[in-house]
Amino acid sequence: MNIAILFGGSSFEHEISIVSAITMKKVLKKSTLTYIFVSANREFYLIDTDKINSKLFSSGEYKTRKKLTLKNGGFFIDGMFGSKDVDFDVALNLIHGRDGEDGKIASMMEFFNIPFISPRMEASALSYNKLYTKFLADSLGVKTVEYEYLSKNDERKITMPYPVIIKPVRLGSSIGVSIVKNEGEFDYALDVAFEFDTDVIIEPFIEGVKEFNQAGAYTNDWELSIVEEPQKEEFLDFEKKYMDFSRDSQVLEADISKELKDKIQDSFKKIYNPLFKGSIMRCDFFVVDDEVLLNEINPIPGSMANYLFPDFEGMINRLFKNLPNEQNIIVNYDYIHSIQSAKGKV
Amino acid sequence: MNIAILFGGSSFEHEISIVSAITMKKVLKKSTLTYIFVSANREFYLIDTDKINSKLFSSGEYKTRKKLTLKNGGFFIDGMFGSKDVDFDVALNLIHGRDGEDGKIASMMEFFNIPFISPRMEASALSYNKLYTKFLADSLGVKTVEYEYLSKNDERKITMPYPVIIKPVRLGSSIGVSIVKNEGEFDYALDVAFEFDTDVIIEPFIEGVKEFNQAGAYTNDWELSIVEEPQKEEFLDFEKKYMDFSRDSQVLEADISKELKDKIQDSFKKIYNPLFKGSIMRCDFFVVDDEVLLNEINPIPGSMANYLFPDFEGMINRLFKNLPNEQNIIVNYDYIHSIQSAKGKV
Repeated sequence: MNIAILFGGSSFEHEISIVSAITMKKVLKKSTLTYIFVSANREFYLIDTDKINSKLFSSGEYKTRKKLTLKNGGFFIDGMFGSKDVDFDVALNLIHGRDGEDGKIASMMEFFNIPFISPRMEASALSYNKLYTKFLADSLGVKTVEYEYLSKNDERKITMPYPVIIKPVRLGSSIGVSIVKNEGEFDYALDVAFEFDTDVIIEPFIEGVKEFNQAGAYTNDWELSIVEEPQKEEFLDFEKKYMDFSRDSQVLEADISKELKDKIQDSFKKIYNPLFKGSIMRCDFFVVDDEVLLNEINPIPGSMANYLFPDFEGMINRLFKNLPNEQNIIVNYDYIHSIQSAKGKV
Repeated sequence: MNIAILFGGSSFEHEISIVSAITMKKVLKKSTLTYIFVSANREFYLIDTDKINSKLFSSGEYKTRKKLTLKNGGFFIDGMFGSKDVDFDVALNLIHGRDGEDGKIASMMEFFNIPFISPRMEASALSYNKLYTKFLADSLGVKTVEYEYLSKNDERKITMPYPVIIKPVRLGSSIGVSIVKNEGEFDYALDVAFEFDTDVIIEPFIEGVKEFNQAGAYTNDWELSIVEEPQKEEFLDFEKKYMDFSRDSQVLEADISKELKDKIQDSFKKIYNPLFKGSIMRCDFFVVDDEVLLNEINPIPGSMANYLFPDFEGMINRLFKNLPNEQNIIVNYDYIHSIQSAKGKV
């Protein structure tokens, strides 16, 4: 199979997308990979798979590569004698943050009729925004951590006790996130968060909370990853999370009861099906007093959470064969004719 | 000002978008209009403003017009000696239903850095889906009609008494909508709705309910339309709604108390701000026992609800000058360097 890896994007997570993308070479060994880079100013470039490395991007050398145009059916190389399409079977959306997770790439792939692995538009819009994730979970009967919500111009006042954690609603990878231990630190933490986003959610910071990650996809059946208990310090800073995106070796399954595992997997399935069909995504859960709470949805997890799956490459293949289809709409212009005759009568 | 009218699309409302678009010639008289047609198979065509008429599309003649390619900064005409961009100041998204209202056009305009009048992606995703509209209204303290929700594979059972109204969650213009007077009609009505969508909401059908429409935009200040009490029969069928899309003459303001008008306008503002900035949208409200309930959001109303505004063309101008800006993200590759050195140490 030939998989086009879409990576980069106009995103605070542009660079970690590059790390994720390069990691795919180590985990998709039986496939042909076609790398399509989305530059920070949103031009498309075809990158040679053999020669891909992070310096190619940080040095600006990528600008010497072939530029691509997105059209109906695929990406095209323009030349003297018409344009030629770039050959691949499916596009794998590996753009973290804006462009990739907010629904832009999904919109464009769907509009231009390109098979793609990624959350679709609605799933993206609801999971990219942490406030909307709360609405979604609530409607599906999945519990989340309690929260308050503030917009940039709102009065800076909360009712929950400290410590709290402040998160910009639209970012991942801990960007703009602060733990606030007392009122004195609140204002500065909000300033930091509002540099990245116009809205924040505020949650209680639960010292030493148990955290578990569950990734998965629905292919021709459920393919759920092992449950991971991520290593953590107070919380991962950006650079540590960043290193995390280059992971490619299997991790150990969390040592938890069957009952807890079932609860986590049930919650994952409720969130995933049917909204996230076509994607491999990860849900991060907290466990508080034996109750499973959804903390975050990672619609495009770092290096696709490959290290949590026993057969990641096989799963990509099966997912490709079971992508959701857009509904076929036939336009036959019946109504234009009927209106024209109706107008004639008036 | 030169306004590009985007219309058509792969949508059940493709044809009414053509009607809406042609109507713009009658109401945007001081502007230069540039018509860009999105065909049912999603190719872009430049249509001559002088010669536009509905037959051009129903006959397939549009295929002889210049094809356009969407790239960074605009739409381009490809030719022998490179490509030339189509000149305009702002794109007005007039695609009803899929592509226009679901967020695809908004995604693409934002990605390719083209100024555009339309709900943005998040506003589109939340208003295109009637279930998500309920979540949104609920979170903003705007009441809606009570409802039940069914997916295609769910058991066909509801708890509310008849008569009910069944609506596909993702369509406008009454497509697939049925009023169900008793249990015997329920199954067939669901079959009809599920031909158009995988999910439906079911609401009580309130005989003779008072309905009021409020459109508006936030430019440099609020510009709210008059409140309209739409003429209606049991409910408008598709063909009658269709005729509605060619309206261009002012209607009379509904004869309601100042108190009710204030309530309607307050609810409109709660929904609009800040999510719908950059758009002209319409909210349709029910009034039951003096309570204002949001019935539907029309993110791209028929002929942009021009007939409800005293100065529609001026408003378009002011909106263009006050479009929301996407946040500027600077990618400087600091982290790639730091990772490379961190890896060196390991």
